[in-house]
Amino acid sequence: MPDGKPIYVLNGPNLNLLGSREPHIYGSATLADIEAAVTKRAGELGHTVVFRQSNIEGELVDWLQEARDKAAAVVLNAAAYTHTSVALHDAIKAIAIPVIETHLSNPAAREDFRHVSLVGKAAKGVIAGFGATSYLLAIEAAAALAKEGQNA
Amino acid sequence: MPDGKPIYVLNGPNLNLLGSREPHIYGSATLADIEAAVTKRAGELGHTVVFRQSNIEGELVDWLQEARDKAAAVVLNAAAYTHTSVALHDAIKAIAIPVIETHLSNPAAREDFRHVSLVGKAAKGVIAGFGATSYLLAIEAAAALAKEGQNA
Amino acid sequence: MPDGKPIYVLNGPNLNLLGSREPHIYGSATLADIEAAVTKRAGELGHTVVFRQSNIEGELVDWLQEARDKAAAVVLNAAAYTHTSVALHDAIKAIAIPVIETHLSNPAAREDFRHVSLVGKAAKGVIAGFGATSYLLAIEAAAALAKEGQNA
Amino acid sequence: MPDGKPIYVLNGPNLNLLGSREPHIYGSATLADIEAAVTKRAGELGHTVVFRQSNIEGELVDWLQEARDKAAAVVLNAAAYTHTSVALHDAIKAIAIPVIETHLSNPAAREDFRHVSLVGKAAKGVIAGFGATSYLLAIEAAAALAKEGQNA
Amino acid sequence: MPDGKPIYVLNGPNLNLLGSREPHIYGSATLADIEAAVTKRAGELGHTVVFRQSNIEGELVDWLQEARDKAAAVVLNAAAYTHTSVALHDAIKAIAIPVIETHLSNPAAREDFRHVSLVGKAAKGVIAGFGATSYLLAIEAAAALAKEGQNA
Amino acid sequence: MPDGKPIYVLNGPNLNLLGSREPHIYGSATLADIEAAVTKRAGELGHTVVFRQSNIEGELVDWLQEARDKAAAVVLNAAAYTHTSVALHDAIKAIAIPVIETHLSNPAAREDFRHVSLVGKAAKGVIAGFGATSYLLAIEAAAALAKEGQNA
Amino acid sequence: MPDGKPIYVLNGPNLNLLGSREPHIYGSATLADIEAAVTKRAGELGHTVVFRQSNIEGELVDWLQEARDKAAAVVLNAAAYTHTSVALHDAIKAIAIPVIETHLSNPAAREDFRHVSLVGKAAKGVIAGFGATSYLLAIEAAAALAKEGQNA
Amino acid sequence: MPDGKPIYVLNGPNLNLLGSREPHIYGSATLADIEAAVTKRAGELGHTVVFRQSNIEGELVDWLQEARDKAAAVVLNAAAYTHTSVALHDAIKAIAIPVIETHLSNPAAREDFRHVSLVGKAAKGVIAGFGATSYLLAIEAAAALAKEGQNA
Amino acid sequence: MPDGKPIYVLNGPNLNLLGSREPHIYGSATLADIEAAVTKRAGELGHTVVFRQSNIEGELVDWLQEARDKAAAVVLNAAAYTHTSVALHDAIKAIAIPVIETHLSNPAAREDFRHVSLVGKAAKGVIAGFGATSYLLAIEAAAALAKEGQNA
Amino acid sequence: MPDGKPIYVLNGPNLNLLGSREPHIYGSATLADIEAAVTKRAGELGHTVVFRQSNIEGELVDWLQEARDKAAAVVLNAAAYTHTSVALHDAIKAIAIPVIETHLSNPAAREDFRHVSLVGKAAKGVIAGFGATSYLLAIEAAAALAKEGQNA
Amino acid sequence: MPDGKPIYVLNGPNLNLLGSREPHIYGSATLADIEAAVTKRAGELGHTVVFRQSNIEGELVDWLQEARDKAAAVVLNAAAYTHTSVALHDAIKAIAIPVIETHLSNPAAREDFRHVSLVGKAAKGVIAGFGATSYLLAIEAAAALAKEGQNA
Amino acid sequence: MPDGKPIYVLNGPNLNLLGSREPHIYGSATLADIEAAVTKRAGELGHTVVFRQSNIEGELVDWLQEARDKAAAVVLNAAAYTHTSVALHDAIKAIAIPVIETHLSNPAAREDFRHVSLVGKAAKGVIAGFGATSYLLAIEAAAALAKEGQNA
Repeated sequence: MPDGKPIYVLNGPNLNLLGSREPHIYGSATLADIEAAVTKRAGELGHTVVFRQSNIEGELVDWLQEARDKAAAVVLNAAAYTHTSVALHDAIKAIAIPVIETHLSNPAAREDFRHVSLVGKAAKGVIAGFGATSYLLAIEAAAALAKEGQNA
Repeated sequence: MPDGKPIYVLNGPNLNLLGSREPHIYGSATLADIEAAVTKRAGELGHTVVFRQSNIEGELVDWLQEARDKAAAVVLNAAAYTHTSVALHDAIKAIAIPVIETHLSNPAAREDFRHVSLVGKAAKGVIAGFGATSYLLAIEAAAALAKEGQNA
Repeated sequence: MPDGKPIYVLNGPNLNLLGSREPHIYGSATLADIEAAVTKRAGELGHTVVFRQSNIEGELVDWLQEARDKAAAVVLNAAAYTHTSVALHDAIKAIAIPVIETHLSNPAAREDFRHVSLVGKAAKGVIAGFGATSYLLAIEAAAALAKEGQNA
Repeated sequence: MPDGKPIYVLNGPNLNLLGSREPHIYGSATLADIEAAVTKRAGELGHTVVFRQSNIEGELVDWLQEARDKAAAVVLNAAAYTHTSVALHDAIKAIAIPVIETHLSNPAAREDFRHVSLVGKAAKGVIAGFGATSYLLAIEAAAALAKEGQNA
Repeated sequence: MPDGKPIYVLNGPNLNLLGSREPHIYGSATLADIEAAVTKRAGELGHTVVFRQSNIEGELVDWLQEARDKAAAVVLNAAAYTHTSVALHDAIKAIAIPVIETHLSNPAAREDFRHVSLVGKAAKGVIAGFGATSYLLAIEAAAALAKEGQNA
Repeated sequence: MPDGKPIYVLNGPNLNLLGSREPHIYGSATLADIEAAVTKRAGELGHTVVFRQSNIEGELVDWLQEARDKAAAVVLNAAAYTHTSVALHDAIKAIAIPVIETHLSNPAAREDFRHVSLVGKAAKGVIAGFGATSYLLAIEAAAALAKEGQNA
Repeated sequence: MPDGKPIYVLNGPNLNLLGSREPHIYGSATLADIEAAVTKRAGELGHTVVFRQSNIEGELVDWLQEARDKAAAVVLNAAAYTHTSVALHDAIKAIAIPVIETHLSNPAAREDFRHVSLVGKAAKGVIAGFGATSYLLAIEAAAALAKEGQNA
Repeated sequence: MPDGKPIYVLNGPNLNLLGSREPHIYGSATLADIEAAVTKRAGELGHTVVFRQSNIEGELVDWLQEARDKAAAVVLNAAAYTHTSVALHDAIKAIAIPVIETHLSNPAAREDFRHVSLVGKAAKGVIAGFGATSYLLAIEAAAALAKEGQNA
Repeated sequence: MPDGKPIYVLNGPNLNLLGSREPHIYGSATLADIEAAVTKRAGELGHTVVFRQSNIEGELVDWLQEARDKAAAVVLNAAAYTHTSVALHDAIKAIAIPVIETHLSNPAAREDFRHVSLVGKAAKGVIAGFGATSYLLAIEAAAALAKEGQNA
Repeated sequence: MPDGKPIYVLNGPNLNLLGSREPHIYGSATLADIEAAVTKRAGELGHTVVFRQSNIEGELVDWLQEARDKAAAVVLNAAAYTHTSVALHDAIKAIAIPVIETHLSNPAAREDFRHVSLVGKAAKGVIAGFGATSYLLAIEAAAALAKEGQNA
Repeated sequence: MPDGKPIYVLNGPNLNLLGSREPHIYGSATLADIEAAVTKRAGELGHTVVFRQSNIEGELVDWLQEARDKAAAVVLNAAAYTHTSVALHDAIKAIAIPVIETHLSNPAAREDFRHVSLVGKAAKGVIAGFGATSYLLAIEAAAALAKEGQNA
Repeated sequence: MPDGKPIYVLNGPNLNLLGSREPHIYGSATLADIEAAVTKRAGELGHTVVFRQSNIEGELVDWLQEARDKAAAVVLNAAAYTHTSVALHDAIKAIAIPVIETHLSNPAAREDFRHVSLVGKAAKGVIAGFGATSYLLAIEAAAALAKEGQNA
């Protein structure tokens, strides 16, 4: 049984527009839809969820730091900051809990400036390309990693 | 006659220092001077102006999102973020209204790290190099694009 | 209920050594262990599994082509060929069913020559970094995609 | 009141095909349409216009040199030569009057080989992406710069 | 039966020296020899030929534009301009008829600065490396493409 | 009259899917259709054809080596291996007979990773972009080169 | 004797975690420890200290601007933003007082993405690699530069 | 005295053509000549030899894996695959016994695409440039390393 | 005694502006001044001079070709075309007489885009950086080379 | 109290010209001035100084090796060799005592070829940009590090 | 029987520290140990040895020049200069006797700046990665090459 | 009449081998031949010559520094160091007298690693490609520059 710590699900810039933003790339689910689905799946696995979005790089850094003590694991869709943020990279390195890089679309199949992942250099793993399902798979991965950590 | 929506004029980092910052590059007009001139010109073209400045990338993203419903068009001088912000690029792509990249100086004639424009990959067009006049030309372009959009 | 088509799980070069090969990177599960776990999870989701490994790039291309008619989806851990094989890229592009790029470790956190994914430019999505769990998550993704495709 | 010198509007390769050439990129106005609109706007601002087109790089260089003494300012759409011509760059540097880089479409949003502007390294400023309107804005900029120069 | 329009065969810089210029690379046939052979082969296929050479990039652009209405197809050996001319690239894009990139030698097997083909990014196809025979094969390709176009 | 040696026509990875694979790029002719057309045209020129396809790089190397003694010339569509195979490059260098690089589509007009041709650095020449017609032109080139070789 | 203006010591992202974050790289001193030591050393040199930390790039820009009038000099450990922030670069250029780039570890000896310093292109000088001692040396440098400025 | 395990000597693509392939680069010894010389020298050092050649990358991977248990050391001339094969790199990393990169010619003195050695990133050492003698020196190195390993 | 053939002195784009164009870089001598000085020096060495200037790349190619039969040697200041013209490179390669690359300023000490010399890859030698004196030294070099050629 | 070992202060090429060489970059202090100031400051910290200058890379390597046993720490201004010398890098790696990279000016703010520091990849830390003060700060850093080492 | 000329064994910067310098990379043998072993092995092959070390690039150039007349062959471990010295490259090219590049460790498996070998572009061959054994194998190679040269 | 100061002619690595070193590139004149010719020509122009050669980079730096006070100008053939020496670059910048980069062959027409000239970034001008004649022309340039300097 889990230790009661929630999974943090942190969302980066422009994800608050989901559902209306370029739906041919990002799908029609809104961020609220994803929050609901994620919360349900996490609940089945014995975890609560802290679900947030910010357009500000430094706020995402703040939340990652907060997660260090309060969260079992982090699901991080850093969106645009994935590719440019050394600060997020360093924050992930600085905390001991597992962080899972998550994307709705598959960055490798998009523009060149999305092919480098600074987040990925520090994250435990990546799940990308399955739309809202990416988040659900990431919750499962997070739960499994949290369990491993607890047993270790 | 315009539909009553204002033109958003959004200014990025360090532009609040205009007039005193490296005047050989940026000229001696202050941001308040530019706001006054821009508001006057927009008024002649039947538009009001929402004029803001921030040093925070994510706040500029917020304002671009806000502009989606509230503005007829955006004049964006993202300054330093022009060259590094995938988040601004994504925000521009995510909103349907025209965004006009604007600069006081001509980035192509400056340092190498100003030669790539991530904003430019998403913007409708660019006006740069004419000092405060760049803004006035951008207002004209914005008004013309807003009119086209209304008639389309 | 599934249409009875199996999920193909295709494994590239050196994966037959799993368990004994650099366990600090790849874990101690053998490929047979993974096949058993994958088959069990797929069974729970109503799919059988065709599970193969080859060290030969062209044989992986053959199997991807075979999957076009026979499989509901493909879980592909192309290992070393992920980064160099235009042929695998083209094969994925040439078949209509979803292909999921899968890795035990997280390539973004390893050597530079593992940072480009030619497989990723063509695949539906990617799951990497969770050891044997990567495969189980990929099976779930495959099952979800197969269901979508059937309903479309 | 202007000093009576015309504004030179110089057009580079393939612009003579405007209207019929890839209208989804370049719009449906012909070069003659643009000449008429440009002449009208310049007239309102007290300038005549010398309007020319050539497919030959060296001829554009000739005209820029000629403009040194005869023109108040130059609006230059160097088209394809924008990105490859050191000769145009040098010609702009060699003449004292302002040169305004102008484009119908926005090069930053197109192919990689249009992302470097050698013309831009020497030009006063750039206006791009507004179709035929780019020229009208450039005329305004030219008139403003000519006036500044006269008063200086 | 063909529609009576000729095939344009356009030759770029230094090709007027053929026969005497580095014969170990370009062979001993003169440009007149090639014109004769090309005209004969085109005649067998029901086409006349317009055969020209220029050392001036812009003149080649002019001729490509002229070909738009007057030619069934173009065989273009842009020689040195193949690798540097955005203007030729744009001219090919601007005309609807098929253009066939042709070379006597094989650029891929020569100096690095011949490995990029801007012409090739816009052309229908390429035939290179067979000496004067390259032209004859190109004529056949042109005739075939013209026929397809006529039947479409 | 030919010396009785056949022309080898060797096809690389995924070409066995022709007709059903991305027909907007590769056309609707199957590889069997191409074999038939190629055999007919070669017959008219006095040559038989050995026509093969493999997804395995090393098998293509084997066949090129076999061709050294048995074939008059080779038409090689190495497909994806064109861009990555030093082994094919070396094999072509190692055999004395002419090898003609052939493609259905024009690699110069496609993705960046298709712009380098290692095959091209060793081949006699290239014919690309004309669909199935590329093969027929290559057969003609092969026959011409075989004849030259015989007379030399 | 100093003019009474404080030295600003500004700290970038993740530095609030000092002491617990990767101590093998950053040492075991906390940011509070450093603030105390820095304040003491500055006091000995006749300066007070304004000591701040933020994870938000734009907030660091704000503080640099504030320092223009209020501070004698700035000690700036921009951490991750050192390598990516054109905005910080521009802010430093925009203010007249000396700014000293400071790091606990030596970026030149770490990952490639820490080898470019945009801050360094604008800063007066750099002190890096001595752990908390870097700050003390930077305070000395700041005091010396402030004195020079005052005497100039 | 050796432990009775043979030295594997594995040869990559096109090496079966030795003696007739570009003898100015590779010398006139055939692969059979080399096998004889190698077997003789190994015998003098108390080792038998398993000597193989393949044009197929994956087959070389298979043999490296086989060598893990059966061989004392491996002499590997991967030829063209030296420069492109991540799979061989990974196979070498996956086995505990020493692998010696060997070449007839000196890749550093040849084409650019032979200057990167992926095999070399994983191999114990390299011997190149001495023609058939390279193999004999490699056998000595292999015997010395096997002896060290046995004594360790 | 010379064979009576003149030395061709060919000047590229913008050199007709010499004397008035950026005199801090190019000096105050006009092209006519240089022609006079060059003619005098050549006369002392027994040569006449053909002195021309063009802004058109292809015209410079024409003149180089003309020089093949008519000139003893060529002094070529290709100016801006030095760095971009494969056509001039090919023309120099195509003619047997010596060509001497000449510049008023030293390109190695100027902007990056002047650091590559395509002319230099084909020319006999280079003289640059001495203002008008560069031409006089080039005439001496040309006369010496012409004499060598005559005696060979 | 120090162990009596001196601090070595080693100066690279052209530093013997200090005071007269480009004083706008390097200041007006001579190397003798710096030696005096450095000796004084070191004395206050209980260290003597060995102060040397050489234009020869290998001599600097010799001195670094000598310092291994004889010095408490090294202050190294390798000047031009900072950016090109793998030999200095290796020497620093080979000795156990701390080495402090020092510069009068700030290389990050100068030409591109001064942006890579091979010395920096091996040194303990860097102090640059403060003119002669850089040396004094480096002496303090050296003394502090020597003390740490003694206590460790 | 040898012609009596010695083999020169030349060692570059920092190799005088062998045995104490980073023994996990370079082993524990000292340079004197290697000299002894090398002299013994050379003696068995009928050669004497001239064994030297210098930290100065130009001194190694001097010795290579001296070897031209006095040595049968050269074993050169240029250490750090391997990767940066065009001067050593040119010296090797300038002398007719065989030069063998030798290293204790395998540069291909180390830092990026050790992956280019300028020495290797000129040397006969390379032996690297076997610790002190590299030298012994190099002596054998040198003796074999000297014998070939004598018989040629 | 000259001021009596000599012209320094400084020669870099391997130039002492002239006459016997790769004569197809460097010609058959020895360095002594060149010294004699150079001294004669300089004498005619009223200058004596100090003529030296060294294989050691730092020694060339020493001589350049010495020339600052003692020489009227420097003719510098830095040979291999031309392309790698920041130290020579800095020495040239540090002295006020003109330095003329000189080469026997034309580096632009040779290997890639000879295409960058660090010496050229600092030198007054360059003369290259004319064999021993390069030196004579450089002497003339030096004499002319010395005269200018004297008259300025």
